[in-house]
Amino acid sequence: MTEHVGMGAGGEFDLVRRMLSIWGDLAEGVGSDTALLSIPSGLFPVVSTDTSVENVHFRRDWLSPRQIGYRAVASALSDLAAAGASPVAVLICLTIPESWLADLDDLAFGIGEAVQSSGDGKARVVGGDTSRGLDLSLAVTVIGAAVSPLSRRGARVGDRLVVTGDVGRSARALRALRGGETPDPADMKRFSHPVPRIREGIWFAERGARAAVDISDGLSSELAHLAAASAVHLHVDLDNVPVPHGLNPHAAMQSGEEYELLVALPPEVSIAEFRHEVGTAATEIGRVITGPPGVSLLRGGELIAPPPGHDHF
Amino acid sequence: MTEHVGMGAGGEFDLVRRMLSIWGDLAEGVGSDTALLSIPSGLFPVVSTDTSVENVHFRRDWLSPRQIGYRAVASALSDLAAAGASPVAVLICLTIPESWLADLDDLAFGIGEAVQSSGDGKARVVGGDTSRGLDLSLAVTVIGAAVSPLSRRGARVGDRLVVTGDVGRSARALRALRGGETPDPADMKRFSHPVPRIREGIWFAERGARAAVDISDGLSSELAHLAAASAVHLHVDLDNVPVPHGLNPHAAMQSGEEYELLVALPPEVSIAEFRHEVGTAATEIGRVITGPPGVSLLRGGELIAPPPGHDHF
Repeated sequence: MTEHVGMGAGGEFDLVRRMLSIWGDLAEGVGSDTALLSIPSGLFPVVSTDTSVENVHFRRDWLSPRQIGYRAVASALSDLAAAGASPVAVLICLTIPESWLADLDDLAFGIGEAVQSSGDGKARVVGGDTSRGLDLSLAVTVIGAAVSPLSRRGARVGDRLVVTGDVGRSARALRALRGGETPDPADMKRFSHPVPRIREGIWFAERGARAAVDISDGLSSELAHLAAASAVHLHVDLDNVPVPHGLNPHAAMQSGEEYELLVALPPEVSIAEFRHEVGTAATEIGRVITGPPGVSLLRGGELIAPPPGHDHF
Repeated sequence: MTEHVGMGAGGEFDLVRRMLSIWGDLAEGVGSDTALLSIPSGLFPVVSTDTSVENVHFRRDWLSPRQIGYRAVASALSDLAAAGASPVAVLICLTIPESWLADLDDLAFGIGEAVQSSGDGKARVVGGDTSRGLDLSLAVTVIGAAVSPLSRRGARVGDRLVVTGDVGRSARALRALRGGETPDPADMKRFSHPVPRIREGIWFAERGARAAVDISDGLSSELAHLAAASAVHLHVDLDNVPVPHGLNPHAAMQSGEEYELLVALPPEVSIAEFRHEVGTAATEIGRVITGPPGVSLLRGGELIAPPPGHDHF
């Protein structure tokens, strides 16, 4: 049952009430300044935070308010997926300009949709904050519980590098949008409605994956981050990077806003078993080898320069 | 010892590195997408989040970048104080316009100062996010650990209503700033450098306080919220509200950006003992009585209308 702390009068609380009426049972205990977290015993609490800002992370003419709300939460949840954690609690800091107030309900619907569809469906909105501002901005904090939390650190020589799903559709959708064209529907769906790989991350963590990261900054950047964090050398075969038909793998590696996982798996873990049990595509794109921290990228058996990554600054 | 996950190249990471070099041992494990939380066993994890937005919560010509960084974190920590929790971890979502980049170091100094001075000094910055935007905005999430977390809910008939310190200086400082005058130095210090009442909150929680809230939205609003959340009637004597010399108590009750605590204390807990052990002023301003949820405010023994609260919308 949903219980919220009684709230007094006031415009800010009215906005919160509007969102709560949309979230229903998906919110719990909102209205307090602090929320109590219930982490199942024996599990480790992990936390992550992610900001979505208008005209930086999205444009209003490209996405509906509902999609914007959904994506802001999904992208934060994706970090929990990479940690192998089950989502427990979501906090939303919403900065909303006057011009967006009419779209608050749709934003809330999208937020609720992302919370509801995450993991085992037990995550709840437990708090947040609303304020005015010039940009619409959603700073989303997510808390999860993991049996054995994964991070970028821990990859070891001999591990396989595995990528879930495929990469590159978001960049192609963005290119079309920027050019004023209509993106391919499958590309647009990936861009507007990414699905955090929660079940996939938990499977990998339970099977002893050493390190994982979501590739929201692009595969190229994330390989470099994983190599730096784990202090290992990654040997990646561009010909094996899973890209949809018609997409250049080199460009796909720079595609940000992707929410697939890059995982360093001990060689004894079977990728076929992952595919069979979880039902999600997964591809080996390389190996962790001895060498200085960094990435070697091969195409047609020859070393090539890694493409630059995706960076907001 | 401070350990950070190795970070690759990139402008966003360069900003993070600049802040980390200022924070030193105050940051831990930054660079991962998720942070592991260590909550001492037997304690409850609590979480709170708070946004500070330029021209909504502060103005650049009123506060230095260092003060802005300090205040953003202090105001989030104040919610942990009200919960009776010891700060454990801080996450910073920083949205920074180009024009603010030169002030990043000063912002980071202020953030570090607030983290360092909080509670037992064990809190650490464990993560965050940086992005561009039109407004400078700091969405700060804090996680704490409490023996027995307090919220707005739980006040019972017979409890005393206690306020720490005094109220009204922030509003007076703001009035002066808005009028282009120089505020009284003590008022300005309260406004620019509020001290979260962490030790005070822990003391109250350990002694069996029933409910607590910080009065960041003004005493008047917070009394109404406490009454609504606890479903009790509060009987408050305006003549007992602690205000500095020369300040109108009615105006002081509407002063937002105050970080004192309002606590519902069982009658057997001694306020004198609190003052003696903690060294902080505390004043009984009223009682929880039987009646419909709400607040009765008395002045000179007569009922008066409660002043309107502080609301961003």
